[in-house]
Amino acid sequence: MNNFQFYAPTDFVFGRDTQDRVADLVTRYGGHKVLLVYGGESAEKSGLIKRVTGKLAEKNIEWSVLKGIRPNPTDDRVYEGIAIVKRDDIDFILAVGGGSVIDTAKAIALGALYGGDFWDFYCGKAKPEAALPVGVVLTIPAAGSEGSPNSVITKIDGLHKLSYRSLLTRPKFAIMNPELTMTLPWFQTACGVVDMLCHIFERYFSNTPAQLVNAYSEAIMRDVMDQALTLRVRPDDYEARADVMWAGTLAHNGLCGVGKEEDWATHRMEHEVSAIYNVAHGAGLACIAPAWMTFVAKRNPDMVWKFAINVMSVNPAGKDTNRIIAEGIKALKDFYHDLGLTTSLTELIGKEPDIDALVKSLEGNMGKTLGAYVPLSMEDCREIYRLAL
Amino acid sequence: MNNFQFYAPTDFVFGRDTQDRVADLVTRYGGHKVLLVYGGESAEKSGLIKRVTGKLAEKNIEWSVLKGIRPNPTDDRVYEGIAIVKRDDIDFILAVGGGSVIDTAKAIALGALYGGDFWDFYCGKAKPEAALPVGVVLTIPAAGSEGSPNSVITKIDGLHKLSYRSLLTRPKFAIMNPELTMTLPWFQTACGVVDMLCHIFERYFSNTPAQLVNAYSEAIMRDVMDQALTLRVRPDDYEARADVMWAGTLAHNGLCGVGKEEDWATHRMEHEVSAIYNVAHGAGLACIAPAWMTFVAKRNPDMVWKFAINVMSVNPAGKDTNRIIAEGIKALKDFYHDLGLTTSLTELIGKEPDIDALVKSLEGNMGKTLGAYVPLSMEDCREIYRLAL
Repeated sequence: MNNFQFYAPTDFVFGRDTQDRVADLVTRYGGHKVLLVYGGESAEKSGLIKRVTGKLAEKNIEWSVLKGIRPNPTDDRVYEGIAIVKRDDIDFILAVGGGSVIDTAKAIALGALYGGDFWDFYCGKAKPEAALPVGVVLTIPAAGSEGSPNSVITKIDGLHKLSYRSLLTRPKFAIMNPELTMTLPWFQTACGVVDMLCHIFERYFSNTPAQLVNAYSEAIMRDVMDQALTLRVRPDDYEARADVMWAGTLAHNGLCGVGKEEDWATHRMEHEVSAIYNVAHGAGLACIAPAWMTFVAKRNPDMVWKFAINVMSVNPAGKDTNRIIAEGIKALKDFYHDLGLTTSLTELIGKEPDIDALVKSLEGNMGKTLGAYVPLSMEDCREIYRLAL
Repeated sequence: MNNFQFYAPTDFVFGRDTQDRVADLVTRYGGHKVLLVYGGESAEKSGLIKRVTGKLAEKNIEWSVLKGIRPNPTDDRVYEGIAIVKRDDIDFILAVGGGSVIDTAKAIALGALYGGDFWDFYCGKAKPEAALPVGVVLTIPAAGSEGSPNSVITKIDGLHKLSYRSLLTRPKFAIMNPELTMTLPWFQTACGVVDMLCHIFERYFSNTPAQLVNAYSEAIMRDVMDQALTLRVRPDDYEARADVMWAGTLAHNGLCGVGKEEDWATHRMEHEVSAIYNVAHGAGLACIAPAWMTFVAKRNPDMVWKFAINVMSVNPAGKDTNRIIAEGIKALKDFYHDLGLTTSLTELIGKEPDIDALVKSLEGNMGKTLGAYVPLSMEDCREIYRLAL
């Protein structure tokens, strides 16, 4: 285990009807005038926005609105949010939604207190010294952004999709009511499950010894897969919704990566796909992750072998390493198929993707190599994209 | 899963040489003048106190000292600490040690800003509105107090051993260097392992459905047992020390209890034993826990059966529930014996304990019933003490 620092000071308020505590929590964490950020019409139609603003009104908390945030959120909405914050003297950003909404809220929180362009942080030109507080009412368990210091924004000019990590933007609170996720379209639930699993993969596949962290990571992965299959047949199963929601937070709040060298090659390769082809992040990961595993297992089989046995429940008796690994990856693909997702980029995009363009953009954003479990050259990444076709 | 709030804002700084960051962390969390609380001579002999105070001196942080805190810490030292805080204008309490030291530091932190007697909080007469910040350099992985809001203090007058829980006293930071635990006497390592396992037991044995939380709790319990047996033969195994140390925190920071009704009968019954006979808390738990499981399994077998299979690795094939449970409890006792501990109160104390006195004191502190997985009457508790003889 490597040395680590783990500091996760988000106040998680979890369970039925917890959205009714939003105004108390905004007040507790210093908000007086709120920028309410949310996505499409579903949050309005379900009555959630009305319920949240009703609670704000009861406490005489004023709010402005930035709505219509889309998946793979873009810099233009961040600039728009920053302008509203300055215009309306906002002191608190409240995200009601999933990862795209929360990530937009975080970027606004960083940019609003900075003299320059918020993109400076994402492209590594500057480090923030302060941020507005962010609070969350989570509606899509997936990105784990409600409990993480990370956010991912796409710059429309050049389609750069970049991630930035700052302790300043760990949400002050996250309200998590599993009931709010029961009406999600199945595709969003499925993509969320793929995303949270991959957040654990990026930490699990590591060369750092980590018996305890691996053990609880495996337990969380097995449970998420099991509960996802429950939800496929019973989308309103509260226990399964609750497990998936809490697992999504644990997958990305840092707990599964303490003391380990992390990888993140799969995420970075997928970011190119979703930036260029605007597919759902989770759907892209379902194609890239098994291809990545297939490729890295040839150079460094240990953790892929362990994953096959301990997570995908491959019975190792009488089988050699290669067969165990092949069965494990097949079982993972079968699981994605059971969720109704494809593991083929060609099928996902509707045509064969332009691998040259993907690799070129990847190199532009990431340089010559990426990953840690197996460090990948751009030629290796090209091969992984091919395996994912 | 029940509704829950999980807020664990302790800054964990984990790994080799991390004690050298103590002064930076005291400063970051607002300390200027420190009360340094520690235990016996081992912290001085090892050079740890000198190393910590050297770092404080480098940053011009002044300190006063309260030393000689013993296991099952008592109220007299708390009063003494509060007097020093007032005399020397202390604004930060720094605990260097294990649970007893940290719990004393927390009680001082609460009492120092209160006009009345700090014991009012422990016996339920008053609620605190503020506390001084507490920081920790952990030397004994066991109580989990470094990441918990809890503290346990014994009032010498009447030998009342009571626990109090306040978010105000969650430590601001916890420095955790597994190397500092390599020279612990084996008995302390063993008692620590028993204590942290029991912190999970108190949450695991519950009637609340909790598939995900149970799954990662089981993974942590299995790993602690495995690494404890490694340490029995290789006490300087860094990975095993690190796992046991991190597990001790996770066992009691609330993560293993989210959304569950907790029990705590075993702890409360043990508190009477250690208060009256001044035995080590972990050593007492090794006697009470298997007796408690034996008793409750007759009324509510489900989780004891699950524990036997999923944690103690009993192979259920061809066995009925009673046999699986019996084998699971036997395996737990065998594990304690492998650690060199007894599971007999009579052997631990050196004579048969006075069960009437234990039950009388328990009733005085707790009332007519305790526990939740199986609610226990005082007659039930008497029977459990008998089973533990």
